[in-house]
Parts: sequence; structure tokens; C-alpha cells
Amino acid sequence: MKTLENFALNASTQYITVNGITYAYRRFGNKRDIPVIGFQHFTGTLDNWDPAIVNGLAQEREVIIFDNKGVGNSTGETPDNVLDMTKDAVEFIKALGIEKFDVLGFSLGGFIAQYLGTLYKGMVRKIIMVGTAPQGAKVLEGFYDLIAKGSDLDPAELFIYIFFTQSENSRNKGKETLNRLFERTEDRDQQTIEKSVNAQAKAITDWGTLSDINISEIKQPVLIIQGSNDEMMDSDTSYELFKAIPNAVLSYYPDAAHGSFFQYPEMFVKQANDFLNDFN
Amino acid sequence: MKTLENFALNASTQYITVNGITYAYRRFGNKRDIPVIGFQHFTGTLDNWDPAIVNGLAQEREVIIFDNKGVGNSTGETPDNVLDMTKDAVEFIKALGIEKFDVLGFSLGGFIAQYLGTLYKGMVRKIIMVGTAPQGAKVLEGFYDLIAKGSDLDPAELFIYIFFTQSENSRNKGKETLNRLFERTEDRDQQTIEKSVNAQAKAITDWGTLSDINISEIKQPVLIIQGSNDEMMDSDTSYELFKAIPNAVLSYYPDAAHGSFFQYPEMFVKQANDFLNDFN
Repeated sequence: MKTLENFALNASTQYITVNGITYAYRRFGNKRDIPVIGFQHFTGTLDNWDPAIVNGLAQEREVIIFDNKGVGNSTGETPDNVLDMTKDAVEFIKALGIEKFDVLGFSLGGFIAQYLGTLYKGMVRKIIMVGTAPQGAKVLEGFYDLIAKGSDLDPAELFIYIFFTQSENSRNKGKETLNRLFERTEDRDQQTIEKSVNAQAKAITDWGTLSDINISEIKQPVLIIQGSNDEMMDSDTSYELFKAIPNAVLSYYPDAAHGSFFQYPEMFVKQANDFLNDFN
Repeated sequence: MKTLENFALNASTQYITVNGITYAYRRFGNKRDIPVIGFQHFTGTLDNWDPAIVNGLAQEREVIIFDNKGVGNSTGETPDNVLDMTKDAVEFIKALGIEKFDVLGFSLGGFIAQYLGTLYKGMVRKIIMVGTAPQGAKVLEGFYDLIAKGSDLDPAELFIYIFFTQSENSRNKGKETLNRLFERTEDRDQQTIEKSVNAQAKAITDWGTLSDINISEIKQPVLIIQGSNDEMMDSDTSYELFKAIPNAVLSYYPDAAHGSFFQYPEMFVKQANDFLNDFN
């Protein structure tokens, strides 16, 4: 990786309180008209955003990452459904005084991205979805089993099991990602508490049974990124997302699982910045 | 489009004779270690390479385009099968003294790319395939019917019918592409003669019945580009290519047909240059 300004290492955690809930967030990068806001995966906190990715995006725009209600250092009770998570996120964003933003939704965050693109059209300029699936995705029936299968692993192995394939190359990229995620040693987030994790797990599983939005109504430009072998979301469902959303670009990365953009951070950053800068 | 050095307009047509066959070609761009060689679609000649694309690639590498045997200004009889077309192309490339190259294969040229990646591994560094399909693709049974449906159209409408969707936006991009293709007025190629066109049509149709190579043996990095609505090749078959080739990146472009890269030349050029420069 070429040397980027290391915002992810140095940005201090900030707090803002809305309706009695205090949200932890970090905000950094080179200001432009529209910031990109990151919506995080199952259990993930501020410290689970890959520095290679957020630093790469932040060279060309402002990046905001945050802990949603009940996650990491944010207070309150995590809702057990994606719609309420979306409403919480919108409260937080409005509290920052932001009227228009770009979305980077990863996994569970990609579900929120789909609500944002349909129910909060006016606030969203462009959307990037990574490792996610549409409502009704059958694969989510197996979400609890997939998580249970990893429950005996130590944290580093669990991370690689979830986000990378079994190949040596992919596993090595997983170790490199972990090193990047632990480069920051001060002002780290606390881990998401079990009660919140359980609420998120129910929300993810239930996404597979929902049909309360029509993503063909998403009129914003969308960039969909997926790995070849995402067992959690089923890689095929990204092609379904692409076919349903009228103005979407889809890219699949090889020998990659749920963490495709962790594995190819430079390619992802170039595609994402080009998409956010130029694609209409 | 930003202004690029207009190699496509100014590069003169050159000729080289091998085994009694004279091949027409153009060679231009900023020299680097490995040139990229373009393999053209059904009926296409030197003048069917979109200047926005070849100029964009040529800023960062040397580009070689050529008429294969019996096509455009090249002499000889076009073979009625892709394997012999591949052998002819290799003869031409060796005659130029080139031992290693990158491949840009469009449609029929993407079939040749698949032979090159399996049967001529040692000569090929990286491969880009646009709007193409694997051997055995069922959709090719309908190739003659698809061409017949367009036979009453004038040349400009036929071009748009084949390469673009019915949407106003896509059709407008088709007209812009045509303007680019006709900017060059001197030293143009002659149209491919009917006998060669018929041989190519047989080769394309027969590709749908072949299984003489295994593309999972392609070890080179591959970039696959396809539109959302390619009726000729069936867009779904690019996902099949991606799943079969171990180290492939796949990108689908929205509201686009067989000519996806004509419709998004800037996005394509960035992806292609990044892929050729950096992806391993």
C-alpha cells in the first residue's frame, strides 16, 4: 500500500447526544461537498473499519463512521430490526447537521443502505453496498448456524473464518487486515455487548423474510461489491441486487468471501472514489 | 470526456506479411514493457475500436489493434472457427516480434482470448474480456436469428440495435460512440467482405457447441466486463465466466447491452488501466 495520511489512526472519537442517546463517531478526511458515511457490519464498531479503506476514501472526501444505537461506545438499546436501526442512524446524521450524504453500507450496513435509498431518498446522493443481500435472501435462514460454527474459534481465527476464504492467499490478506485494524491502540471502542449482538442477529435473520421495500425504486447511482465466495450473504444475491436496482454497477472480486473489500483495499478504494467522483 | 492524445485518429495503418498473409494493424501509445493487443468483434475492423477507449488505454501503454485474416484490410480467407483465428492472430503477433502481451478481447475477440489464456499461456500476461461468453453458451444458438432481426436496419440503427439498449440514455450513448468511430476520415479500413462475415458467424454459433478447453486453467489475472442486458452473449454467462476462471474480477455496467464499454468509456478505461497496472 502506498502511504496515505493516516486519519483512521489519529481521528479522535467524538460524541453527540440526540433524544437521550449518545452516539460515538469519528469524522475525518479532506472536505468536499458531500461526506460518505459508513454503516457497519454485524457486531462491528468504529475500530472495525479497515484503515486502508477509510484512509483511501478520506484522501478525496470527508468520511464519517459511527456506532449505531447500543453498538460499541454508543448508548441505548440496539433495535432488533433494520428499519429502526435506519431511523436511529438518520437521527444521528441529522444531529450532525448533514442533509445529503453518500452511503457506504457493509453487510448489515448494506441492509440499512437499502432502506436509506428507498425511504430516505432525498438525503442520499450515491450508495456503495459491500457484501450484502436483498430482502428475502434465503441464505439468511442459516445465519445463526454460520455464526455458531465459528463460536469455538479464537477472535483472530473467527475474523478470518467470517471474512476470508480458506485459500492461503486470502487468509494472508486476512492477517494483514487484522494488523491494520489493531494498529490503533489508543481511544479504541469497547466491544459491542452481547444483548446488542443478539438484537442485530435477529435483525439480520429477519431481513431474509422481509419484503417491505422495493429496491427497483432506488434511483441513486449504486456500486455493489461482493466476493466470489460469500457464504453469509450468498454471492449470487449481489447479482440479484444488481438486476433489481436500475442504475447499479456490480463488481465481484476473486477468491474472496464476506470481506471482499478488506482483501482488495486498493482496488476497492479506486473503484469507490471513481464512482463517488464521476459516476452518474 | 477529458482531452486525450488522439492516437486513434492519427495512427497510420501499417502492414506486415506472414506466410503469404498481409495483416493490417495500427500501433500507438506510450511505450511500457507489455503492449495490450485488441481482438475485435464480429465484422469489426480497425475503425470499430472506440477512440475513447483505445486512446484512454494508450495514455498508459502501447496499444496494438489489427485485422485478423480476411477481415478489413487484411488478406487471406477468414477461418470458420475460433481456434484457427487464434492461430492466425498468434502468427501475426509473433511476426511483430512480441513475446508477451495483454489481451483485450471483445465479443468474438473474447473467444480468442479464452484460447489464448489456455493454449498460449506463456505469451499472455493479463486478459480483459468484454461482452463475451464461455464455450457451450446456449444463447449462441440464436445468433443467426438475432443478426437477421437487425438486417433491415440502416447501418447506424443496426449498430445501436446490437450494442445498446432501447433506453433513451443508452441510445444517445450509441450515437456519441458512432460520432467517435467516424471522426477518422482518412486511411480508413475497408468493410469486412461478406464471405468473411459468414465464416465469423459460423465460428460464433459453433462456439456455443464446443468444449475443447477448460477455462479454469486460465491462471492469468482476468477482468470481465459486461452490460446488464446483452442479448447476444446473455449477460448471465459473464457470471459463469467469472465463476470458472480462478483469478477474475467481474464488473457489470447498468442499462447496457453488448457494447457496455462503448457506453461507459471513462469508467472502463480507469478499470482497465488500473487492472493492467496493478492487479495481480
